Formats: sequence, structure tokens, C-alpha cells
Amino acid sequence: MKLQVLWITARRADKQSAIQDLSEEYTKRLSRFLTIETRSVASEEALLKMLGGATGRVPPFVVLLDSRGKQSTSEEFARFIESHQSRGTQTLLFAVGPADGFSEDTLKSANQLLSLGKMTLAHELARVVLLEQLYRAFTILKGHPYHSGH
Amino acid sequence: MKLQVLWITARRADKQSAIQDLSEEYTKRLSRFLTIETRSVASEEALLKMLGGATGRVPPFVVLLDSRGKQSTSEEFARFIESHQSRGTQTLLFAVGPADGFSEDTLKSANQLLSLGKMTLAHELARVVLLEQLYRAFTILKGHPYHSGH
Repeated sequence: MKLQVLWITARRADKQSAIQDLSEEYTKRLSRFLTIETRSVASEEALLKMLGGATGRVPPFVVLLDSRGKQSTSEEFARFIESHQSRGTQTLLFAVGPADGFSEDTLKSANQLLSLGKMTLAHELARVVLLEQLYRAFTILKGHPYHSGH
Repeated sequence: MKLQVLWITARRADKQSAIQDLSEEYTKRLSRFLTIETRSVASEEALLKMLGGATGRVPPFVVLLDSRGKQSTSEEFARFIESHQSRGTQTLLFAVGPADGFSEDTLKSANQLLSLGKMTLAHELARVVLLEQLYRAFTILKGHPYHSGH
């Protein structure tokens, strides 16, 4: 299974570097567990076009981040990832919306909505939190001590 | 009202710089709204000693971050802050626990527990998310366009 993590971004120079550093750190760690591709997408339209994608290709399972989505514990999230590995999902795709969230139209293209919590999180922080949760999920599945706080 | 944000930390050199940059960015923004003091505390024992504090001093209202705490939306969180300003709270103190969370003993010293979501978040990320939510709360109270995604 391949992991794709996309985000819609209007660059904010002031915080970009620290966010980038953290994103790269978790991406690097995740790449020990599976193939991961991260990518900044300029707009929701560009994302929808990507999801529509080339014909003949197996479409990815699309999870969009939205506060109205399902909240799960880190353990439940790990089981969700595991279930996709078991059922042979080729690409599991997560995408973080623009500053004011995904439009209703984009949300309709999702297979599932995921919420990181009731609070509205800055979208660049949501990206880092998502990558950390993905990394945490694999450490849970592999019995790595990270999740127990070490 | 003064804001105090404390965290228990065993330093992680690899991510410290990016986390520090983001923490400073939100702290700087928060300082436009009120006096804020941020501080790293070496252990839970040191935190408890601080909370016990000097006699004769008005004790702070203590909010500890814990996944079993109350979850609120960003708007509800803003109202919580506002209520403490209205009732004359002198110091509103938030503290983020060590990697494996606060001990039961420390949790008992809290006036309130706050949860950022069902997922277990790396404690250094929890600090950044907390600071962002505090900043967001003040932008909500002041009608600043940040919360609407601009």
C-alpha cells in the first residue's frame, strides 16, 4: 500500500519553514514503514482533477480532513490503516483543505471524512498533526515504543 | 488577566527548533492581546511545586491538557477564556504534560482538564496546538479575521 498526503496551500512565509521541517521529519519516519508521497496542491480544483485522475488507474481511497468527520483514537486510527493494508487498498490518500476548509463539492468526492478534534485547527498545523498520527499509527501496528511515550 | 503556558519537557534535539519557532510565533501573536508567559518545566514535581507556590499569592486557575478532559470547539474555548476575563481571574494557567501524559496526582491539582481531541498527540505538538487555539480564541473574541481563514 502507498500513502499519499496532499494539502491545499497558500504559502505563509512566516511559518512555512518550521511547518516544512516538521512535515519532513514525520514523512521521513513514515517512509521507514511504507512508500509515502507528500505534495502541495495549489487549489481544490487541482485536487479534484487529480482525484478524477487517469482512466484505467485504480482510484485511491480518499480521506479528507473535516471537523464534521469521524473522530477516532490513535489506536482506532491505526486499525483503520491496518484494515486498508489487509483489504489490498493500493493507495490511501489523505488531504488537508485550504484555510477555510473544503467546499461541499470537494467533500462529496471523499470516501471518508476524518476529524482531528472539535477545535478548528490552522490548516498547516492540521497537516503536521495528520502526519504525526500516521506515523503514530504505524508505530502502534509495529509495536514500536513511540506511542507509549518513549 | 495574565496567561501562563507551561510544558514538561525532555528535550528532543531533532524537532526542538521547529517546535520552538512555532511556539514563539503564536506567543508573539498572543502578546498583542494580553501578557503571556511561556515556560518549560523540567518535571511534574517541579510543576506541582510551582502550583503550590508562594503563600499570599492568588492561585492561578489551572487547566491541564489530558485526553480525558473536556473537548470544546474553538468558539466554546474562546467563551471560556472570555468568562475568565469577566470574572477577574488574575492568572489563567495551561500546562501540557510529559510524553506519557500527566500522572493522576498531578491531574488532581487541576481546576479543569482540556482535551484537544481523541487522538494522542505528541506532547510537543500539543503545545503548539494549544498556543494556536489560545491565539485563535482571542481573534474570535476580537472579531479578527484569522478564524474565518484569512
